[in-house]
Amino acid sequence: MLNPNSEKTSEILLKLNLFGCVEIYMWMIIAGNTMERIRVGVIGAGRMGTTHAKNLLAHVGDVEFSFVVDTDREAAERLAKTVNARQLFGSLEDVDLGMIDAAIVSVPNIYHYPIVTPLVSQGVHVLCEKPLGLRASDAYELMRIAEKSGSILQVAYNRRYDPAYQRCKRLVEEGNMGKILHIRSQTIDPEPPKGWEADTRLSGGIVFTTCCHDFNLLTWLTGEPVIEVYACGSLMVHRESLSPDDYDNVLVVLRFKSGATGFVFAGRFCTYGHDVRTEVHGERMSVRVEQDRMLPIEAYSGDGVRHDYPYWYMERFRESYINEVKHFIECIKTGSRPLTDALDAAETLKICEAAVASILSGKPVGLS
Amino acid sequence: MLNPNSEKTSEILLKLNLFGCVEIYMWMIIAGNTMERIRVGVIGAGRMGTTHAKNLLAHVGDVEFSFVVDTDREAAERLAKTVNARQLFGSLEDVDLGMIDAAIVSVPNIYHYPIVTPLVSQGVHVLCEKPLGLRASDAYELMRIAEKSGSILQVAYNRRYDPAYQRCKRLVEEGNMGKILHIRSQTIDPEPPKGWEADTRLSGGIVFTTCCHDFNLLTWLTGEPVIEVYACGSLMVHRESLSPDDYDNVLVVLRFKSGATGFVFAGRFCTYGHDVRTEVHGERMSVRVEQDRMLPIEAYSGDGVRHDYPYWYMERFRESYINEVKHFIECIKTGSRPLTDALDAAETLKICEAAVASILSGKPVGLS
Amino acid sequence: MLNPNSEKTSEILLKLNLFGCVEIYMWMIIAGNTMERIRVGVIGAGRMGTTHAKNLLAHVGDVEFSFVVDTDREAAERLAKTVNARQLFGSLEDVDLGMIDAAIVSVPNIYHYPIVTPLVSQGVHVLCEKPLGLRASDAYELMRIAEKSGSILQVAYNRRYDPAYQRCKRLVEEGNMGKILHIRSQTIDPEPPKGWEADTRLSGGIVFTTCCHDFNLLTWLTGEPVIEVYACGSLMVHRESLSPDDYDNVLVVLRFKSGATGFVFAGRFCTYGHDVRTEVHGERMSVRVEQDRMLPIEAYSGDGVRHDYPYWYMERFRESYINEVKHFIECIKTGSRPLTDALDAAETLKICEAAVASILSGKPVGLS
Amino acid sequence: MLNPNSEKTSEILLKLNLFGCVEIYMWMIIAGNTMERIRVGVIGAGRMGTTHAKNLLAHVGDVEFSFVVDTDREAAERLAKTVNARQLFGSLEDVDLGMIDAAIVSVPNIYHYPIVTPLVSQGVHVLCEKPLGLRASDAYELMRIAEKSGSILQVAYNRRYDPAYQRCKRLVEEGNMGKILHIRSQTIDPEPPKGWEADTRLSGGIVFTTCCHDFNLLTWLTGEPVIEVYACGSLMVHRESLSPDDYDNVLVVLRFKSGATGFVFAGRFCTYGHDVRTEVHGERMSVRVEQDRMLPIEAYSGDGVRHDYPYWYMERFRESYINEVKHFIECIKTGSRPLTDALDAAETLKICEAAVASILSGKPVGLS
Repeated sequence: MLNPNSEKTSEILLKLNLFGCVEIYMWMIIAGNTMERIRVGVIGAGRMGTTHAKNLLAHVGDVEFSFVVDTDREAAERLAKTVNARQLFGSLEDVDLGMIDAAIVSVPNIYHYPIVTPLVSQGVHVLCEKPLGLRASDAYELMRIAEKSGSILQVAYNRRYDPAYQRCKRLVEEGNMGKILHIRSQTIDPEPPKGWEADTRLSGGIVFTTCCHDFNLLTWLTGEPVIEVYACGSLMVHRESLSPDDYDNVLVVLRFKSGATGFVFAGRFCTYGHDVRTEVHGERMSVRVEQDRMLPIEAYSGDGVRHDYPYWYMERFRESYINEVKHFIECIKTGSRPLTDALDAAETLKICEAAVASILSGKPVGLS
Repeated sequence: MLNPNSEKTSEILLKLNLFGCVEIYMWMIIAGNTMERIRVGVIGAGRMGTTHAKNLLAHVGDVEFSFVVDTDREAAERLAKTVNARQLFGSLEDVDLGMIDAAIVSVPNIYHYPIVTPLVSQGVHVLCEKPLGLRASDAYELMRIAEKSGSILQVAYNRRYDPAYQRCKRLVEEGNMGKILHIRSQTIDPEPPKGWEADTRLSGGIVFTTCCHDFNLLTWLTGEPVIEVYACGSLMVHRESLSPDDYDNVLVVLRFKSGATGFVFAGRFCTYGHDVRTEVHGERMSVRVEQDRMLPIEAYSGDGVRHDYPYWYMERFRESYINEVKHFIECIKTGSRPLTDALDAAETLKICEAAVASILSGKPVGLS
Repeated sequence: MLNPNSEKTSEILLKLNLFGCVEIYMWMIIAGNTMERIRVGVIGAGRMGTTHAKNLLAHVGDVEFSFVVDTDREAAERLAKTVNARQLFGSLEDVDLGMIDAAIVSVPNIYHYPIVTPLVSQGVHVLCEKPLGLRASDAYELMRIAEKSGSILQVAYNRRYDPAYQRCKRLVEEGNMGKILHIRSQTIDPEPPKGWEADTRLSGGIVFTTCCHDFNLLTWLTGEPVIEVYACGSLMVHRESLSPDDYDNVLVVLRFKSGATGFVFAGRFCTYGHDVRTEVHGERMSVRVEQDRMLPIEAYSGDGVRHDYPYWYMERFRESYINEVKHFIECIKTGSRPLTDALDAAETLKICEAAVASILSGKPVGLS
Repeated sequence: MLNPNSEKTSEILLKLNLFGCVEIYMWMIIAGNTMERIRVGVIGAGRMGTTHAKNLLAHVGDVEFSFVVDTDREAAERLAKTVNARQLFGSLEDVDLGMIDAAIVSVPNIYHYPIVTPLVSQGVHVLCEKPLGLRASDAYELMRIAEKSGSILQVAYNRRYDPAYQRCKRLVEEGNMGKILHIRSQTIDPEPPKGWEADTRLSGGIVFTTCCHDFNLLTWLTGEPVIEVYACGSLMVHRESLSPDDYDNVLVVLRFKSGATGFVFAGRFCTYGHDVRTEVHGERMSVRVEQDRMLPIEAYSGDGVRHDYPYWYMERFRESYINEVKHFIECIKTGSRPLTDALDAAETLKICEAAVASILSGKPVGLS
């Protein structure tokens, strides 16, 4: 299919046929087209697919949406309308991948691997939701395919695009903290997962949906490989809504090669909001990242002092999602390696696998 | 001039003359046009004009920019390009007001009155930067003109659109605070004003550029009329960059009809950032509004614990500016009275006038 | 009367007459007596008198209590027992001032002047509760008497002995803050005064009981004389329990000689606790002093995040009271001028007088 | 030996032999003795022994110090003088235990068991520093001996006497938190241990000196038995000053019978202060305990906002130490079981032993 971005003659045509302000308006659009627009396909029109697509539209200029695909046709339609996508499909099989330069993949975790494989094979740039499949070996394979085809393959570990975590990383790198000794991260959701996320066969369970964020963050912040993982988990609150092989209370100990220790906790019971906190202890400085209120207002009464708390990750990490898609487009334009690439995602999956193995065996698991 | 929004036949024309995906794109635009788009003129392409125009574009769907006007042609051009404005002018005299439904007026304070007058006279809806001129009598006149012509005249007292202040107002209204006894607000800028804002003949000085925000906020929050104003001011830091009749340290006492007292402080010397804080003391509850950090990260070292602070009002009030233009468009669409209307702005100006009179006379000044 | 401290031979006597561990115990006491003990009389056995006396006993070694006087004989008895005072009196007239080296005076404000006068006239060192009487002229007179007799006359402006305020003062003095531009202090009590404090004839009302603290603090922190005072007040909540000429909402503007401005607010309605806060704005640094919680614990629930607040000044300023009496004893021992001396207290009273005059006249009042 | 408290005739004797105010003074002392004073021996005059003795003297009325023992004769002398102890010894062998009703034992951990054994065997009440020896079996034995002899045996797990932790415990017990799901505690010291604490043969190392606090706290707060322990440790910073079998980075995972998980971290590298924090996550509420500043003052400058942090446990836990000795005396007077008794201390030691076994084996260790 023809790339409309190269249709530079259309500018004249429009001027001849239209009048008044419409003519001027057309001029603008065409002017925009003198730069190459990136044609994006949105695969998966759920919460994250919608977020990514909206952010691309509002905060990144040079994209256009070729299509939205979702088996839930209504969701696809809603999103297509919102972002002015040209077409919508109920199945990926109906799509001609030649229509797009790039794809946003936000589908159940189990489908990340089979869906991303043909995309990167055909040279489509992909922003894939985390994790990059449910097996480290699959992620390594996707990495190799993408390297061969020249696809940018970015994985949506959004915390790395969060300004506070980026400042934290900078503090580590500047060296004023000294050697990193201990690092900790927790992610407690206010509610149990719903839909496919509640089905461990599709999501991989809490280690693959939640802990992967913390693993990815901690290895990035320390720059250290993990050599051993010990984990344990229990299902205490949501016995009825969660799969029996899932957990709402997971605790993971990481040992880094340097001797530093790490700790990750994940839960699904924080009535007050999305309690996501990280702390890094260095020899000379410690850093804590936590957004502990949403609105900057406090009420003082006979009951004491009260303030709110960010309820959900969308509120806490709003800016990171914008930065993430900006980074994706920037990498496509400049041919750069994304901050959160497939290699990195594969290594995170190795930790996930080890954590699950440790929970099941009750023993620490070494990583080669 | 013809309103292009009603040109519904253009859809077919476009389809005949264009091909492929461009055609589909055009279809979308025209589909968008089946709803009435509001044609907006941007008068003043400085910091606030740019902010308002960008927010309209990114966060409010149904607008298009008819023109940008600024005597600084480069600024006008830059903004016109950013928001896809159809035309740009170096002078308002060149503009046909029939081109627009609405205008954003962000020019030096002294020009608010002469520029808004013809706009509202001709029925153009106006979002005017605060204050609404430099004389309460002018503001009252604009109010009457707008009422007659049916123009929506909204004044950009953005704090009222800030989620934290809105929650504060709700707390007052819900009655759990009890009777309001004392209210306080301060606004200390990290830097002295530049450009026209540094010229009291154009800006009116700190009372009209800064304190007006706090006056407007406090009367809204209390819902009480001010009956007496006492103020004093000094120029202690920026003697060289500020007009000799301006201040960098202003303190205002407000007495409300109910017996409640108010206090406003304005300064221009906060090296750490834009220190804007408000507190409301009621019989049974006190509320404080202050955003005391920008990024949710803290560093702990031998020097103690350290975090950042929001440096400038753009960062602190980002969301309020978005809500403000949304409200403006909503009022236009529904014909509602804006939250920050001309009457309200006129009353704020009365307090400004009294504050200046008090500074000059050294005595409290009663308000009728 | 003989000073028992000099009875160094008693040691031997005791050893001869007593046996076993009692003997040893006696030895200790007598050993203590080889240093001169300061004989203290406690005049006024109410809340503050009790606090001062207990702190002397627990935290300052070399004192003994010669007597406690209070017209409330039960209160006197209770305190005498607690601090092992040798005698108790129902009236000061029964007391031989030769019994004491020093006195703690904590009686209704109106009696400060008549009670302190004979004490300092006879060379007794005095720690007098604030304010030092209800008239500046009386305070100046006491200052002169004390200078002549060589009495240490310390006034219990305890905030100056608070570690946080002392650090604040140090920050000002070190010069890193730059020139002080604006300073602010508020004191809102959780409850209206009771007993004699509720009677303006005895206490002088809120300006003399509460604002005097803030005035004293602000002039100390800035090191600047006040040249003008504007104040206003209202009685909004406690119309039934307070004198009709008292206020529960007082607001005072101070103008310093340097051009800096000051602001003081006092109230009596903070249901959550003793809201005492101070902030100092310098050219290059701002400092805030506020203890915003009592226990270091926070609860997070569906209602948001909640913590407590220090309820009363005894909790907030516990340490300052200890330091205050230590300072008093230290000044006596070394003959030093107290940090909060009579001159300073007299100047604070001048501001109190001006504030009351301003409230009554509705006009700013100049200070010579 | 005769209890001097019963020597009521001494009052008369004193009156006969002494004169003037000394006589009156004696009368007070003797009056105090009409209530039974508890005779306390202080065994160990180091930091904690000194703290406990001083707190007893300043905050608990009815005690007297029979002796101080320390192999460091200077330390013993210093403390004896401070608290007016009657005698001092360089060795416990010189002491007649009949001299005392109660003892404060603050000696190197390894000596807790051999020193406490004869004390409780002879019915002396003991406040012993934590841990209660270095072996759970020893602690159980001490428990049995104390039960038999009727001694009060309290172990100085001071956090349980901290008002914030006590409120935390109350929140758990009141049931509003719901079932406890996860609990966490960390203790990072600003400096490595010195003296005997740096010698693992005497102290047992970081698990016995530091983690025991957190273990004791978490089992108390949850009221749940620990069924499995996994721990790992490394020595990263203080390789030169610490024993090679000690750690400065220890991480412990606790599994409770209920399925709840616990986590303990201990370190020795927090340059900013004593970072001790605890959080408890329940189904409906989470609670965090942390004192995050010492003085209530913040400085705002171009460098951001800065405040201090409590540097050492003495500052953070000052009040707990006072409450602890008060509780000890109260238990002696009323014959009550101490909040932190030997049984409890023995169970904490079982967790310590399991943690060390886990560190050494690299595997989780079950607790029966």
